[in-house]
Amino acid sequence: MCGIVGYIGEQQAAPILLDGLEKLEYRGYDSAGMAIYNEGKIEVVKSKGRLKVLSELTHEGALLPGNLGVGHTRWATHGAPSDLNAHPHENTEETIAVVHNGIIENYLKLRERLEGKGYRFISDTDTEVVAHLLDYYYKGDPLEAITRIIHRVEGSYALGIIFKEHPEEFYAVRKDSPLIAGHAQGGNIIASDVPAVLKYTRDVYFIENEEIARLRKNDISFFNSDGEPLTKMSKKIDWDVDAAEKGGYEHFMLKEMYEQPKAITDTFSPRLKDGMIEIEELNMTEEEIKSIQKIMIVACGSAYHTGMTAKYVFEEMARIPVEVDVASEFRYRNPIITDNTLVMVISQSGETADTLAALREAKERGAKVLGVVNVVGSSIAREADGVMYTWAGPEIAVATTKAYSAQLIALYLLAMKMSQVRGTIDADQLTGMIEDLKSLPTQVEMLLENKKKIQKFANRYQAAEQIFFIGRGIDYAISQEGSLKLKEISYIHSEAYAAGELKHGTISLVEEGTLVVSVLTQEPLYKKMISNMEEVRTRGAFVMAVTVEGNLEAEKAADYVLYIPKTNEYFMNSLAIIPLQLFAYEIAVGRGCDVDKPRNLAKSVTVE
Amino acid sequence: MCGIVGYIGEQQAAPILLDGLEKLEYRGYDSAGMAIYNEGKIEVVKSKGRLKVLSELTHEGALLPGNLGVGHTRWATHGAPSDLNAHPHENTEETIAVVHNGIIENYLKLRERLEGKGYRFISDTDTEVVAHLLDYYYKGDPLEAITRIIHRVEGSYALGIIFKEHPEEFYAVRKDSPLIAGHAQGGNIIASDVPAVLKYTRDVYFIENEEIARLRKNDISFFNSDGEPLTKMSKKIDWDVDAAEKGGYEHFMLKEMYEQPKAITDTFSPRLKDGMIEIEELNMTEEEIKSIQKIMIVACGSAYHTGMTAKYVFEEMARIPVEVDVASEFRYRNPIITDNTLVMVISQSGETADTLAALREAKERGAKVLGVVNVVGSSIAREADGVMYTWAGPEIAVATTKAYSAQLIALYLLAMKMSQVRGTIDADQLTGMIEDLKSLPTQVEMLLENKKKIQKFANRYQAAEQIFFIGRGIDYAISQEGSLKLKEISYIHSEAYAAGELKHGTISLVEEGTLVVSVLTQEPLYKKMISNMEEVRTRGAFVMAVTVEGNLEAEKAADYVLYIPKTNEYFMNSLAIIPLQLFAYEIAVGRGCDVDKPRNLAKSVTVE
Repeated sequence: MCGIVGYIGEQQAAPILLDGLEKLEYRGYDSAGMAIYNEGKIEVVKSKGRLKVLSELTHEGALLPGNLGVGHTRWATHGAPSDLNAHPHENTEETIAVVHNGIIENYLKLRERLEGKGYRFISDTDTEVVAHLLDYYYKGDPLEAITRIIHRVEGSYALGIIFKEHPEEFYAVRKDSPLIAGHAQGGNIIASDVPAVLKYTRDVYFIENEEIARLRKNDISFFNSDGEPLTKMSKKIDWDVDAAEKGGYEHFMLKEMYEQPKAITDTFSPRLKDGMIEIEELNMTEEEIKSIQKIMIVACGSAYHTGMTAKYVFEEMARIPVEVDVASEFRYRNPIITDNTLVMVISQSGETADTLAALREAKERGAKVLGVVNVVGSSIAREADGVMYTWAGPEIAVATTKAYSAQLIALYLLAMKMSQVRGTIDADQLTGMIEDLKSLPTQVEMLLENKKKIQKFANRYQAAEQIFFIGRGIDYAISQEGSLKLKEISYIHSEAYAAGELKHGTISLVEEGTLVVSVLTQEPLYKKMISNMEEVRTRGAFVMAVTVEGNLEAEKAADYVLYIPKTNEYFMNSLAIIPLQLFAYEIAVGRGCDVDKPRNLAKSVTVE
Repeated sequence: MCGIVGYIGEQQAAPILLDGLEKLEYRGYDSAGMAIYNEGKIEVVKSKGRLKVLSELTHEGALLPGNLGVGHTRWATHGAPSDLNAHPHENTEETIAVVHNGIIENYLKLRERLEGKGYRFISDTDTEVVAHLLDYYYKGDPLEAITRIIHRVEGSYALGIIFKEHPEEFYAVRKDSPLIAGHAQGGNIIASDVPAVLKYTRDVYFIENEEIARLRKNDISFFNSDGEPLTKMSKKIDWDVDAAEKGGYEHFMLKEMYEQPKAITDTFSPRLKDGMIEIEELNMTEEEIKSIQKIMIVACGSAYHTGMTAKYVFEEMARIPVEVDVASEFRYRNPIITDNTLVMVISQSGETADTLAALREAKERGAKVLGVVNVVGSSIAREADGVMYTWAGPEIAVATTKAYSAQLIALYLLAMKMSQVRGTIDADQLTGMIEDLKSLPTQVEMLLENKKKIQKFANRYQAAEQIFFIGRGIDYAISQEGSLKLKEISYIHSEAYAAGELKHGTISLVEEGTLVVSVLTQEPLYKKMISNMEEVRTRGAFVMAVTVEGNLEAEKAADYVLYIPKTNEYFMNSLAIIPLQLFAYEIAVGRGCDVDKPRNLAKSVTVE
């Protein structure tokens, strides 16, 4: 996720771009840049760091004259945050400047092809491919060049493009990454999201997939991917600025929950190639994968819960023994690391202090370390031997949702890759799983539609003092995340139990009316779970079940049932967590809690 | 622990013995028996099973005429529960009958010596040694024979002894196992504990270590271990029957907490031989111990927490990787068991359904299984490849205390044994640890003296809705047990956290006045723990610390500190748990909870 803004009009462009980018900083903030057309030249200024750095570099834009420009605030995917990797990117002759939000999945292939034709690349980004590819196709007609690249580029993109030879206009095009356009300040503007333009207009054009916009001072025109003109209607925006930043959602957390389908897609899609799984950053040979004798997963908080899920998946699918450890425990317990132990550290920010220290501890003991992180160029990404990125984009709410979901996908992919290399699954199984993966985003979307229903149910438990979650196997890991979500934002003391363990002590807490949330997604364990549900119901508990469509038995032992669609049993967490997130959210909102910034918590825990 | 009763007087002995044994069934109930002198013969009737079986066999005693007899209800230690191993035991000529409570630690050596002299043994018990040894020393004077065996037998014992040639009297002697005597029903009676005699008298003689009592119809005489007469005063008992069964304690749980020093001694003492550790039932060669590559510990509830402690101890001391699993999870998760994996299952009752199923699962997968159990002859003891008994005696309270403490000791001994065989500790270290082990019982006694102080503190938190426990490393395992103890008997929702993990979510539950119990017994982690304590205190928490004498730093970060004495860092759990047990107990009593039988819970969970 990145933020882009473009302007052409009567005013000086740079201050308008900076102002817009500021509103989009929630979309990325590791570097920023602008390209401004002025007096026959495109001038590019860009820098690593927060937008503030760029603003200071340019004296709030004053140092950059010119009435046409594009700007960018970055959340790194390909290429660590650096001055060089910051956008905009240009072709070698500096006649075309591009800002980009999204991921070009086939960029490596395109890059090789372009290099074969003599193009020289100076950054590590996927975006630079677009600049050179435009150069390659550009024969004087920008529209023609853009329509050509639409058909060559795979992945997601929102692009703002300036052609030096066409200083009276600039272009925008998008696929699977958002982009809007509108009239502003005696000219026209594009942006990744509404907040950047609200100051100027409430009438915006939502550019659709593979649509191209051409912006001139007095006119915005739209074209389809064949270059044929389109007629589009603007839409009236009635959000206030605060809501606009949250895309119209009440909270960032809710917005990010709804971004999960995209986070899931962005994480798996670039890794699926010709029915196989390719993880380019992994940095492990097949021989190395085959020689792994043990995996130690180290993480904190929700990332630790994805690790718990991964234990089941790796052990069952790849038959590699997995130990999962809380990072603050791992680093101080003199862990036994034998040869061929792979240590996997999981962290959204890539800066979690305990996890980073655990990584260093593991490396010192000779282990190979693989990082699963969301922030490119973060400390963990830099120091690990290999990286698997989760492409969830920046997460603003303290309580993680989309980064958690993306982590799960990354771990599934790793397990599938290793299982395939080690021969513990066959080609048919792999194909089946890939199909199931591809269905997840739509299934998650469907589940998010239950919001109203869950809200109604949650209203009844706003005053609860304690809530329990139970599950077995993977469902126990899901329960732990469901419980953490609830407790961190609602301040209700909730706790998750391995369902079979409840009767060894904690069942004494169950009394008349206690809510017990029961997760049962694993068919072989349905019967055992139903016994446990009956155990607590006999003691007066109200049982809410999250189970798979078709498991009608659950209705007999539960007072309220939420169904999730069928998927591969390894992937159930990705679906079952959705109603639990919604439940936690609705309870917290109902109790009037500050959902995005719960008390006592920080987003990225960079202290021990 | 077993119960013994003896009677001589005007009445028929058998019904009096049965009545007394019934009051002692809390001390053991796996088999029972009586020896009655009648018309020149000692008749022995005994049977596996509850006392009821013996009662039915003898028509409530009516079938056994005679006015002199000893009876026994058994809690097996050496030799599984069976008709043959039930007490009384006799010499081959059936002229001496013995009932025994305790453990003869040098019985194997004695048995070999006696077998060398032609004695034939028919049971697996340690008690039979006493019968044959008495036979060996008996030259016509019972007192002389008894004084001889006192000096030969090591360990603990309370004995009731009949000599066929002396039908006008019987004898009792004890060391480290309780025994009382008193007047009853036109005669005199001995018993393991007060409840068995309260019906007849409130004036009882407490027989002291190595004192001998000779009981005749009209007279009780006492002698020292040299056979010299003693004058003893009886004591007045003012407990009611219910309190008497609990040894004057308000609850079984409290009584069992005070039995911990003995449970600890009974568990380590028989295993210490000439400065080395010998675990006869272990059934593993040194080669087998050396070849272990991984230990998987499987248990439920508190036993699972001892397993968590054991992970730290085994990994650090023996450098064997350990995985700890909740039994209900282990059995369903298709665990990866490689060659040279030792599976250790821990269960007080030896009948815990999930743990037993896990044992079977592990054996089916080819693992060698070692059981750590408290009940001899239980299913787990029978089905495991090797057994390490915890000699805590029967535990009546649902919330475990002394069985937990005994499990810890058993696990330390196993770790020490394995470390010594594998060469990861040297002779000096072993000697030092053994010394520390031997100090534990006295240290635990000292800690139990804090009861009043802890009660006062607990009074302030009776109305708490939630309480948190935090710790790192072993202290995290201790915290988990402290939290479980509290929640199972007081119904306060308490939860334990790895201290470093609190800030990844759960710290949001901490508010003004929340009690956070902080365990810090590991010196290298003091500083980290103090930071965590300050974290929660900053958010308004009231911090109670359990730490080691001399750690004055803790006072700065805590509002209330309880100190435990120094011991080996591996053994800290055995001391730190005592104040936490007392705290849980006092809170529960203060709230008026049924401490011994908390709602919804069963002592031995024989369902899944």
